Amino acid sequence: MNTLGEKFSFTSFGESHGKAIGGVLDGVPAGVRIDMDRIREALDKRAGRVAPSLEDGCAYSLELKGKGISPRALREGDEVEWLSGVMDGVTLGTPIAFIIRNKDARPEDYEWLKYSYRIGHADRTYQEKYGIRDHRGGGRASARETASRVVAGTVAQQLLAEKGIEIRAKLMQVGEEKNPERFDEYIAAIQRDGDSIGGIVECVITGLPVGVGEPIFDKLQSHLAFAMMSINGCKGFEYGSGFEGVGLKGSEMYLSENHTLISGGIAGGISDGTPVVFRCVFKPTASNRKTLETMFQGSKVSEFQSFKAGRHDACIAVRAVAVVEAMAALVVRNLM
Amino acid sequence: MNTLGEKFSFTSFGESHGKAIGGVLDGVPAGVRIDMDRIREALDKRAGRVAPSLEDGCAYSLELKGKGISPRALREGDEVEWLSGVMDGVTLGTPIAFIIRNKDARPEDYEWLKYSYRIGHADRTYQEKYGIRDHRGGGRASARETASRVVAGTVAQQLLAEKGIEIRAKLMQVGEEKNPERFDEYIAAIQRDGDSIGGIVECVITGLPVGVGEPIFDKLQSHLAFAMMSINGCKGFEYGSGFEGVGLKGSEMYLSENHTLISGGIAGGISDGTPVVFRCVFKPTASNRKTLETMFQGSKVSEFQSFKAGRHDACIAVRAVAVVEAMAALVVRNLM
Amino acid sequence: MNTLGEKFSFTSFGESHGKAIGGVLDGVPAGVRIDMDRIREALDKRAGRVAPSLEDGCAYSLELKGKGISPRALREGDEVEWLSGVMDGVTLGTPIAFIIRNKDARPEDYEWLKYSYRIGHADRTYQEKYGIRDHRGGGRASARETASRVVAGTVAQQLLAEKGIEIRAKLMQVGEEKNPERFDEYIAAIQRDGDSIGGIVECVITGLPVGVGEPIFDKLQSHLAFAMMSINGCKGFEYGSGFEGVGLKGSEMYLSENHTLISGGIAGGISDGTPVVFRCVFKPTASNRKTLETMFQGSKVSEFQSFKAGRHDACIAVRAVAVVEAMAALVVRNLM
Amino acid sequence: MNTLGEKFSFTSFGESHGKAIGGVLDGVPAGVRIDMDRIREALDKRAGRVAPSLEDGCAYSLELKGKGISPRALREGDEVEWLSGVMDGVTLGTPIAFIIRNKDARPEDYEWLKYSYRIGHADRTYQEKYGIRDHRGGGRASARETASRVVAGTVAQQLLAEKGIEIRAKLMQVGEEKNPERFDEYIAAIQRDGDSIGGIVECVITGLPVGVGEPIFDKLQSHLAFAMMSINGCKGFEYGSGFEGVGLKGSEMYLSENHTLISGGIAGGISDGTPVVFRCVFKPTASNRKTLETMFQGSKVSEFQSFKAGRHDACIAVRAVAVVEAMAALVVRNLM
Repeated sequence: MNTLGEKFSFTSFGESHGKAIGGVLDGVPAGVRIDMDRIREALDKRAGRVAPSLEDGCAYSLELKGKGISPRALREGDEVEWLSGVMDGVTLGTPIAFIIRNKDARPEDYEWLKYSYRIGHADRTYQEKYGIRDHRGGGRASARETASRVVAGTVAQQLLAEKGIEIRAKLMQVGEEKNPERFDEYIAAIQRDGDSIGGIVECVITGLPVGVGEPIFDKLQSHLAFAMMSINGCKGFEYGSGFEGVGLKGSEMYLSENHTLISGGIAGGISDGTPVVFRCVFKPTASNRKTLETMFQGSKVSEFQSFKAGRHDACIAVRAVAVVEAMAALVVRNLM
Repeated sequence: MNTLGEKFSFTSFGESHGKAIGGVLDGVPAGVRIDMDRIREALDKRAGRVAPSLEDGCAYSLELKGKGISPRALREGDEVEWLSGVMDGVTLGTPIAFIIRNKDARPEDYEWLKYSYRIGHADRTYQEKYGIRDHRGGGRASARETASRVVAGTVAQQLLAEKGIEIRAKLMQVGEEKNPERFDEYIAAIQRDGDSIGGIVECVITGLPVGVGEPIFDKLQSHLAFAMMSINGCKGFEYGSGFEGVGLKGSEMYLSENHTLISGGIAGGISDGTPVVFRCVFKPTASNRKTLETMFQGSKVSEFQSFKAGRHDACIAVRAVAVVEAMAALVVRNLM
Repeated sequence: MNTLGEKFSFTSFGESHGKAIGGVLDGVPAGVRIDMDRIREALDKRAGRVAPSLEDGCAYSLELKGKGISPRALREGDEVEWLSGVMDGVTLGTPIAFIIRNKDARPEDYEWLKYSYRIGHADRTYQEKYGIRDHRGGGRASARETASRVVAGTVAQQLLAEKGIEIRAKLMQVGEEKNPERFDEYIAAIQRDGDSIGGIVECVITGLPVGVGEPIFDKLQSHLAFAMMSINGCKGFEYGSGFEGVGLKGSEMYLSENHTLISGGIAGGISDGTPVVFRCVFKPTASNRKTLETMFQGSKVSEFQSFKAGRHDACIAVRAVAVVEAMAALVVRNLM
Repeated sequence: MNTLGEKFSFTSFGESHGKAIGGVLDGVPAGVRIDMDRIREALDKRAGRVAPSLEDGCAYSLELKGKGISPRALREGDEVEWLSGVMDGVTLGTPIAFIIRNKDARPEDYEWLKYSYRIGHADRTYQEKYGIRDHRGGGRASARETASRVVAGTVAQQLLAEKGIEIRAKLMQVGEEKNPERFDEYIAAIQRDGDSIGGIVECVITGLPVGVGEPIFDKLQSHLAFAMMSINGCKGFEYGSGFEGVGLKGSEMYLSENHTLISGGIAGGISDGTPVVFRCVFKPTASNRKTLETMFQGSKVSEFQSFKAGRHDACIAVRAVAVVEAMAALVVRNLM
């Protein structure tokens, strides 16, 4: 249930405000020196400590820090402790277990959540499914869990890079804004207003050989969609012509000069050797100052003053960029 | 690779123009009388032999037959032979194997495909992945395989219906046309023109209790997306507010009176007790009279007169409605 | 539940007296010409239509036919019909589905079983687990199901043979008799007496490279044991020094000149490049003339005249030889 | 590869002399208070810190401590740190991650192993499979890994006990000695002699309802055999009449008054409601003073003075008792 992949499998564990989050990565070949810098960078990107760089086609500046991203994310170092599978920095071929201890655990901040369900969160469904939940910051449902995915996915990216396969995601749209040069100011305004906004992340996989993915069920797009839809806040997945392609006629689509844009690099569930292109849409986070309604566990509705100012992400799609890359890498490595 | 689901699993086999297509359905409880009429209806809907009914909100008339749907589909009866797992019409709790023999197999129609790759089809990726392929009508990649899915999925639907869970899909958009009353004429025009067009199918699952789906990877939306993206021609999946929701602000989204439309009936990967709503987009089929280009296996490009008139679907989304329902049923039953 | 293996997977279906038994074999590479003769031979060996040959080290003669083996097995041809995955005798890389129709289905012979549980059979556990069962000849629990395994396993053996890996099993012990030259007469005497007897089958895998099997859970011996214990009537599995080695001291074991006999060709769960040797013990079949007691479904004990003379196997271990080889091949191919 | 079970799954990680060993247990229901004392007891039993009690039918006294069991095992406390899935001692329904830090890690003791393969160990197969290995004390192949299995298995045992299912294993035979009252002195003599000896562990599962296990491949005995064969040093598995039953005739077996002893509590792969009885044989450990030969990595044979006196187990079957119980519990819980 908490494991993704069969041959290259990642098991995730940990609650947002428990002792630690972490994971077990199984199927990494022996003899690989792990690039710890690359992992740190990816974690910083996920945490909003660095902005996606300009060369990624994402223009918003480092000023963004402290504007659209929660202080907790900025403060935490996300130090990875490697427990097994690595000796002197080199993989052993055995399962790699790692943990990131939760430093900023302030459970008292979440005391009120014991008796309340936040709208747009998984509080109620968890409580009804399990009859118990770790109410502190969403517990297992918190997006903090994605830090473990980023560690594992970055190891996968490193393995793929050795074969010439690169995975690059970028923020493509924020709200209705499609011009990257205006993302920074757009998000800052939303942030000032105590509100939140959705976004679209596009991901391109280059260097993938022909033949990745299986016909029928285990299609490449099926596995990518599965992984992306599992990211917190993701409401949709499309590849190639996607939803906008509904209006295309066959005569236009297949005679098009820009066939790859339309096919998305996949035919019959199998990579066709051209770049694979897909997009995910992320909803605005529910943890914003304007979301005031909630329900007590006894089903009665109440109002409350949700969070200290700024303690929320104005646009979770910004930080999702690193997670999309990580998940894509886990999927592709598992299918190869 | 050709199996979907763990506890309730469906294994699919068969080439489009081989002896038979079929499947093995494992995990069906013992003692259930299989509703053969329901299966026949679903197969007819998939084959385009009957139009989705008006009560489904799909307005296009039976006139559609012979217009937007290929003659082969209309001619074939899709007779299901039950090989195991059923005694006197009642399930035994053992694996249910069934086959549908291929009647309209005219391999000679496809002789030219031995040496050609059709654009927009999986011909080339199959050939490069396997070094061999059944070229007859796409072989394993043909949408004919979805008939097996419909048989299995309809058994799943029957099991779900016993628990009050109903799955209904409908055609929501054809090209740019969103008014169901104009679908018929729209598709007929495309058909007359020898062209093809995309469409969007919406599916609603009602009666689902709280708690279906697992946090983290095995989210309900992840499994639904996986299954839908595996349907031939599907280019995107979304639930709740989906891609259009990118422009919504958090303050609008969570204060909305129509919360279910936005949440899509899922929170944190787990069904929340309200109807689950998702949509899939289907591209226009590549098998239309206007798609004239192809490539010889030696990579040279050539022109050919593709199909006899009418032997193609003007809008595969029409027939996908039955497949979407079937796949959703397989997913939901497996997760329960 | 009815599937074995992940990368090379075999799904089995069918009841003993239903329409057909069969299977789906997934993961066979494309472009392999299937050796139909080899499959026929293996099926004949399993059915007791031919005795294991002298070169196998099994001395009992063809006279055995009609003595220790049930008439039904002798009469049936076990004709395999290939439904998919094969074109012109060559594999396509797609799932291979095959069936063997049940010819000698005489359900009326089993009418009395509707109301009785046979001792030593799965009649009662099936009835209590499922609340229904196909009572005809054991239904799904019948050893007839192993014919499907033999078809699939022989395809696997063929694939392994291409890499120089050979799997040979032989009857090693019948009752207390360990001299193959006396097996024939021993079994004939048991048969005349209307009784049944146990046996031990030994299997040797040669040509296996170093490295097959995974540390910890997915050890080579774990997978072999899993597969062998799933064969009808198998009560035990051992490799290398096995149970008799309990009395060995470490000083004797590891200084032994015959280290392979003791290690069984596996170290730490991984093949070590020497022949892999394992053994399985099979109990006497419960379907013998001397087993007269049974229980009515209401739990009352009664006597009945069980079977027509000869309609039982005196020593199921004889026919198990082909099944052991098949299962070993499925396991090894899946792990490679 | 390092995961056992699907619905109730256990993932193991950690090298013998790395930072920590540990595991992730997924599928534990929410709201269960974990019995930490029970886990400590089981770990002590596995480590040889307490002898199996007299009521277990195992007569060897506490004097055994320091005789047949390695000092490292006695010294280590095996302190379990719970990282996730548990809040205030109660399970959350989320994955439970735990670690046991390696305290007695003295890698310098194993420096010589960098260049040598020990006979009877997995040193060579690991090296050839992975091209690298953690040579320190066997690394991943060390029996220390079974401590993680005992933690996970004891949680499973607790869950089973709530349903009235008890799993009890005991030492049944040491070398040729079958009288428990003489085990103590027998093992002590072997230990004094610097040698090692094999043993047989018997396990009985009581309270199991009818219906656990699946027909065909996923038989109860298949899963038990798989799990037992994965325990270090296990060379064979049998249930019910086992290997000794080879000489039984059908007429004796099924008329026997002690039917359960013969059936082992399983019919057709499914538990029949009577106690399930199985046995495993363990070889003598290769790490004894008399095992002097090894091979340098360059394949040349050499002699070396293996271990400091006493730093080995005279009979690993003693400590395997706790592991057999743990593995049986993991298997049964997963199948229910």
